[in-house]
Amino acid sequence: MKTIKIGVLGLGTVGSGVVRLLQDNAQKITDITGCELKVKTVVVRDVTAPRNVDLTGIELTDDFNKVLLDDEIQIVVEVMGTIETARTYIKQLLAKHKHVVTANKDLIALHGPELSALAKENHCDLFYEASVAGGIPILRTIVNSFAADQVESVLGIVNGTTNFILTQMTQNGLSYAQALQLAQEKGFAEADPTNDVAGKDAAYKMIILTQFAFGKDLTLTDVKLEGIENVAVEDIKEAANLGYTIKLLGIADLKNDKLDVSVGPVLIPAKNPLAAIQNENNAVLVTGKAVGETMFYGSGAGELPTANSVLSDIIAVTKDIVMETTGNRFNSYSNNVALAPASEVIYPYYLSLTLPDRPGQMLKLTEIMAKHQASFKAIKQTSASHKQAQIALVTHAMSEATLNAVKEELKALPEMELLAAYKVLGGNER
Amino acid sequence: MKTIKIGVLGLGTVGSGVVRLLQDNAQKITDITGCELKVKTVVVRDVTAPRNVDLTGIELTDDFNKVLLDDEIQIVVEVMGTIETARTYIKQLLAKHKHVVTANKDLIALHGPELSALAKENHCDLFYEASVAGGIPILRTIVNSFAADQVESVLGIVNGTTNFILTQMTQNGLSYAQALQLAQEKGFAEADPTNDVAGKDAAYKMIILTQFAFGKDLTLTDVKLEGIENVAVEDIKEAANLGYTIKLLGIADLKNDKLDVSVGPVLIPAKNPLAAIQNENNAVLVTGKAVGETMFYGSGAGELPTANSVLSDIIAVTKDIVMETTGNRFNSYSNNVALAPASEVIYPYYLSLTLPDRPGQMLKLTEIMAKHQASFKAIKQTSASHKQAQIALVTHAMSEATLNAVKEELKALPEMELLAAYKVLGGNER
Repeated sequence: MKTIKIGVLGLGTVGSGVVRLLQDNAQKITDITGCELKVKTVVVRDVTAPRNVDLTGIELTDDFNKVLLDDEIQIVVEVMGTIETARTYIKQLLAKHKHVVTANKDLIALHGPELSALAKENHCDLFYEASVAGGIPILRTIVNSFAADQVESVLGIVNGTTNFILTQMTQNGLSYAQALQLAQEKGFAEADPTNDVAGKDAAYKMIILTQFAFGKDLTLTDVKLEGIENVAVEDIKEAANLGYTIKLLGIADLKNDKLDVSVGPVLIPAKNPLAAIQNENNAVLVTGKAVGETMFYGSGAGELPTANSVLSDIIAVTKDIVMETTGNRFNSYSNNVALAPASEVIYPYYLSLTLPDRPGQMLKLTEIMAKHQASFKAIKQTSASHKQAQIALVTHAMSEATLNAVKEELKALPEMELLAAYKVLGGNER
Repeated sequence: MKTIKIGVLGLGTVGSGVVRLLQDNAQKITDITGCELKVKTVVVRDVTAPRNVDLTGIELTDDFNKVLLDDEIQIVVEVMGTIETARTYIKQLLAKHKHVVTANKDLIALHGPELSALAKENHCDLFYEASVAGGIPILRTIVNSFAADQVESVLGIVNGTTNFILTQMTQNGLSYAQALQLAQEKGFAEADPTNDVAGKDAAYKMIILTQFAFGKDLTLTDVKLEGIENVAVEDIKEAANLGYTIKLLGIADLKNDKLDVSVGPVLIPAKNPLAAIQNENNAVLVTGKAVGETMFYGSGAGELPTANSVLSDIIAVTKDIVMETTGNRFNSYSNNVALAPASEVIYPYYLSLTLPDRPGQMLKLTEIMAKHQASFKAIKQTSASHKQAQIALVTHAMSEATLNAVKEELKALPEMELLAAYKVLGGNER
């Protein structure tokens, strides 16, 4: 029987999970692939650190060359989690004709096209199923099952940290700060949570999803980005009164052959399956012209779910090695579609703002909106204090350009402050 | 550019969808596969019947030999929907080294192992993603993403007709007969709905899912089967009071290395994502030891969703033709696990029964249950009329053997009648 030797870069949570799953499920993997898969070498920064995984028969080293220069090693798993070092290493590995599996979303979002081209050039596989939505096999599903369909939209709850925080705020009335602290205590948020709460992590994942679903390469600046730091419990309650749940949602939407990609707090109707996704779980709702609405739900992170996605990539590489079909891109769909201008991105919005609690202010707000052809279907004073009133309103569908104009005009008025402007799903946006 | 010619057997809903999608998405398919895919010949029973699909450049014939004997045709799509004729045709096609894609669940559930072996023998692909859960790409997902994991259970709402009927009974209080009639009016149920409402269609799908998830070939008699014909609105209401929704659920569950597969009405806790699957939609919840709970949701039927799954198979075959890797089994996992005896299948049960409305009857029932070591955690009289009381109770987890013993004993008592005995999920069953 053929034995395929594997190198692993990094032995943190995911790396340990990969070693463990390969040991635990060796027989099934052999049954399916006809090969024995063996981790030969693991590269770590500190070889003396204690490890909670059985490393019998595996060389632990801090020398990357032990993997790079070992001709026996055919597949390398990169789970270090840096960007530049990982990029350098992977380029060297591909140049040595080693197949690479990575869970590194930042790297793939920033340098995916470069690395994919290099892999193809060297007849190598480069797979990264684990980079998006942990245990949910969403990338390979898009490749295999939407090939003959036209994806119309991808909506993703793809960041477990922010979904945990918003769930806690919604269900238990915690403030943002309290919910963040709880997430940190439970290990769902890092000490510096910026990348998660500011939406950057979700934006990286949406870049990768957009590449697969629409064949379009984006950079981070193409993604309109807003985090959850300013989401107030009052907005969550008001949204609930209106029949919505606030989620940090990645949206990639193709309309009139133009693409719009954003990450931000969104009001989701309670009957939408995404509204029910709780805590650290992830879900991706893909709408295809033929297939309609499909949703894929599962654990967004964690040692074993993520490691399982890495394993599915390792097995895909192994099959390709056996059949001598390596070197095909993970996603071969490419379509240089244009990005939608702000005038063509149409949604209803939830607005929350403060204004002086005196006659004439509502009229003034209404006049500002009317001037830009913006109108609302519901408006409500939600609280009043210190001569300030807080109001919430839901607009009719309007363009992002209109929203921006209203925002500008409000910014110029010292007495009014716009606290929130969130998209509302399930209205006229489709 | 390479052109791959396709034959289609049957031009009903799915067949028309396949022809349409291949026309509509020709460019994208060519971009991805590097091949032009063209339907050359369609075999139908009646060539004179009106068709609502563009057949320009396609030969319409009632002669199967026009496909079988045409050396240009490499892939044949079977969407006729019979069993024996389809089986005969597919065997002949495979013998002629033609790759076959089918949506025929009955055929695959009954003759899948035979046909898969024949395909492999002839170095042909035989794919059937559309046979289970219409547009949900569940089979290929299990093959690709659970290869290195151990599936613990597969729970499926895999029959749209029964889910529509139960949803209407739950949400609108319709009787079974009224809901069935509505389903027939809307085209979700056939004139003779037996296969759907008796659970046979779901059982076929569970046989296929079990083959993929657990590597085990089953026959229909291995699946414990109960339909929805006897589900009463009263049971649905009582289940709702207890916090459950009644769904026709396929369960394939591996515990202590023994497998149990059943289809029947099941009480699902409201917080379980399966409880939210409405009307004709399907969902499959797969729990893996490593990956945890994942759910795949989408349209269970319909022209384009099902056709899209057929297309994903056609594209998979095309890739295999290009890479010269045809002839590998759709699912290569095989594991001859034993079926669990009734004494090892443990669930809490919802029981509904009628008994005479006079003192001592509850005691008698309790004594019967106690005699078999069955106990309950809740019991309630739900109605009384004509000196008959109807009661509902939820038992503690107990074996199917115990349930069967209690059933036998109740059957012997003319004054008590057991109306329903449904599994309850989310208790001690795992």
